[in-house]
Amino acid sequence: MAGFAKRMAYMQSTADVVRYLFESMTDPETISFGGGAPAREALPVELIHDIANEVLNREQRGSQALQYGNPIGIPDLRQAVIDHLLQPKGLQARLENLIIVAGGMESMNLVSQLYLEPGDVVLVESPTFIQSIQVFKMFEARCIACETDEHGLVIEDVTAKIKQYSPKMIYVIPTFQNPSGRTTSLERRRALAELGSQHDIVILEDDPYCEMRYSGEALPPIKYFDETGNTIFVNSLSKIFSPGARLGYTFADRNIIDKLYEVKTATNSHTNVITQVLCAEFFNRGLYEPHLKRIRDIHRERRDTMMNCIKFMLPDANHVYPDGGLFTWVELPEQVDTTAMLEEAKAQKVAYMPGREFFVEGQPIRNNCMRVSFGSVPPEKIQVGMERLSKVIRSKL
Amino acid sequence: MAGFAKRMAYMQSTADVVRYLFESMTDPETISFGGGAPAREALPVELIHDIANEVLNREQRGSQALQYGNPIGIPDLRQAVIDHLLQPKGLQARLENLIIVAGGMESMNLVSQLYLEPGDVVLVESPTFIQSIQVFKMFEARCIACETDEHGLVIEDVTAKIKQYSPKMIYVIPTFQNPSGRTTSLERRRALAELGSQHDIVILEDDPYCEMRYSGEALPPIKYFDETGNTIFVNSLSKIFSPGARLGYTFADRNIIDKLYEVKTATNSHTNVITQVLCAEFFNRGLYEPHLKRIRDIHRERRDTMMNCIKFMLPDANHVYPDGGLFTWVELPEQVDTTAMLEEAKAQKVAYMPGREFFVEGQPIRNNCMRVSFGSVPPEKIQVGMERLSKVIRSKL
Repeated sequence: MAGFAKRMAYMQSTADVVRYLFESMTDPETISFGGGAPAREALPVELIHDIANEVLNREQRGSQALQYGNPIGIPDLRQAVIDHLLQPKGLQARLENLIIVAGGMESMNLVSQLYLEPGDVVLVESPTFIQSIQVFKMFEARCIACETDEHGLVIEDVTAKIKQYSPKMIYVIPTFQNPSGRTTSLERRRALAELGSQHDIVILEDDPYCEMRYSGEALPPIKYFDETGNTIFVNSLSKIFSPGARLGYTFADRNIIDKLYEVKTATNSHTNVITQVLCAEFFNRGLYEPHLKRIRDIHRERRDTMMNCIKFMLPDANHVYPDGGLFTWVELPEQVDTTAMLEEAKAQKVAYMPGREFFVEGQPIRNNCMRVSFGSVPPEKIQVGMERLSKVIRSKL
Repeated sequence: MAGFAKRMAYMQSTADVVRYLFESMTDPETISFGGGAPAREALPVELIHDIANEVLNREQRGSQALQYGNPIGIPDLRQAVIDHLLQPKGLQARLENLIIVAGGMESMNLVSQLYLEPGDVVLVESPTFIQSIQVFKMFEARCIACETDEHGLVIEDVTAKIKQYSPKMIYVIPTFQNPSGRTTSLERRRALAELGSQHDIVILEDDPYCEMRYSGEALPPIKYFDETGNTIFVNSLSKIFSPGARLGYTFADRNIIDKLYEVKTATNSHTNVITQVLCAEFFNRGLYEPHLKRIRDIHRERRDTMMNCIKFMLPDANHVYPDGGLFTWVELPEQVDTTAMLEEAKAQKVAYMPGREFFVEGQPIRNNCMRVSFGSVPPEKIQVGMERLSKVIRSKL
């Protein structure tokens, strides 16, 4: 057997967890707070059914949907993203500033392919999204964590680490962050855009949860404050349309999109056209806005149920109250090791993501934390699952 | 603006051609023999419509199709690939030997990510598929062309170049090759598998056209002769199902698939589930075999029309008679430069792929060749388009 490239060795440590995450979601008896999926009840099955029934029936539209497409995506969907998702955030985009990609994660891959050389440093939040770390590591980058507090990245620490490491990129999830549920403040968003411009660093702004707000006021993206093109805004359509459709987009200056065109061509030619056509219709028929209201209501109830459970069942824990998204972050007393506790939780048929996985070098690894997702669990099951989980945790105190 | 990774510089030369290829397909007045698309009339629009109508309607199947999926693909589709596509070729596969990917090209990306280090040598056919070269170059590999004749790769030249370059990989399109339309003989298929095993080289067997046979006898894949796991068999579902669905698969030993699981996760999480579900149903309802017969008939007529046109309109040209697939390869008299001729062809509203693009170092670049695709052009338009093309060519003689 021919040997694998050495980049593969950097990835091994996280693969088990990603696998666990997928597996915990498929055991019907386990109540899983592990994955990051939205509510099954929030998936627009009937809407997509009706669109498919009509669109795939029209001879021309149907055969366009089934034929090869453009590497940057169908114009209808790019325009819909501009009109329904970017304009409302104050982001001014033209068709050539957008590329449609195969789900939120693909942007991390394509942007890494475009920018990262082996040994390049990527600054990240602490904690941060495990799967993105895996992408950066696959491209042989070194990930360095910066300090965070309840307002997001601590700018003083970012500034110090820019000096120390000369990073190529800063990766940020500014809204209802994965895994912490926290939101970066307005002031820090502006500061991050400015740091990118001043030091010629790519600010990779990953904002998949921003539409899923259940309380509080929306903030403009980091990209809104970008005057030099250093910020690349990437997003997913998984939460507001469908994860199974594998759609997302990257919004950036045209010279960047032109290069991503080449990278995308050499990655998988183009994103699937069938679901692009269905999604464009979803926006163009005005179905998105009422659907968004509906799924916010569904997830708000779950968020509220989860917050109540944590408050009453885990009185010793610190936790984040997220204004949206799919997660909260729970910090247990020091003696609880959430990785070691995983087996017992499995036996009790409850799953979560141990916090350790979300830490990389640069900040202390904290073994007493966990990410708890409420998105895919109905309220009555959140109650049962949290009873199971609190029982396991209490046995450790 | 932050600088791009140096790998991007290796890709520039081919991006223009890929762009031209997509553009020539979208101008309604141009008759394009440039792209590699199958016939619009061969797309199973009604079948997919009916499946979507039923499957997306059932509450459970519908919400499964719209939710997150497994990085290696849904079991139903993997099983269908085994039963309908691998077994008939004599390939023994289990579910864990397969990963479903987002179209044929994605396998080249994932396998390159898994194996290639900067500077690694990939041996390829001369001529070979431009888009795959672009992938290997993005991973900073050096592509070296080997001699081919009417039976495929000349084994003596491959053996000599293994000695000279110690390649990591040999990339082969054995059936109705892109761009030549040629098929690798049985004997050479066996020899390639053996060379891979003997020298511990990855044989990347890319076989997207193998089902599209219009005459002659099917041959077993190179993978059939592989006894060491060195051959990786990759394929696309674009030609037999739908390019817009972006589906393909990689068949390999389990330890390779386990690693591709990680690479896929860090590329785009998983392939879109909606079209996987539709495609699995397409196979499981027994729709594939009659559909294949129908699309073979459609493309056979186009192949025959094209062969007649070339014979009568381009009597000075050598050309390949392909037993299947979507292309033929035309060699014009030495003085004709098919790249220089492109502008005139554009003016005459006809498009083709100039041969130069398919050559890399190791073999002479031949400027007097062109790839002519007949798949996406109806017979009456093949006639008109070839009249336009022969007029342009005759003006050069």
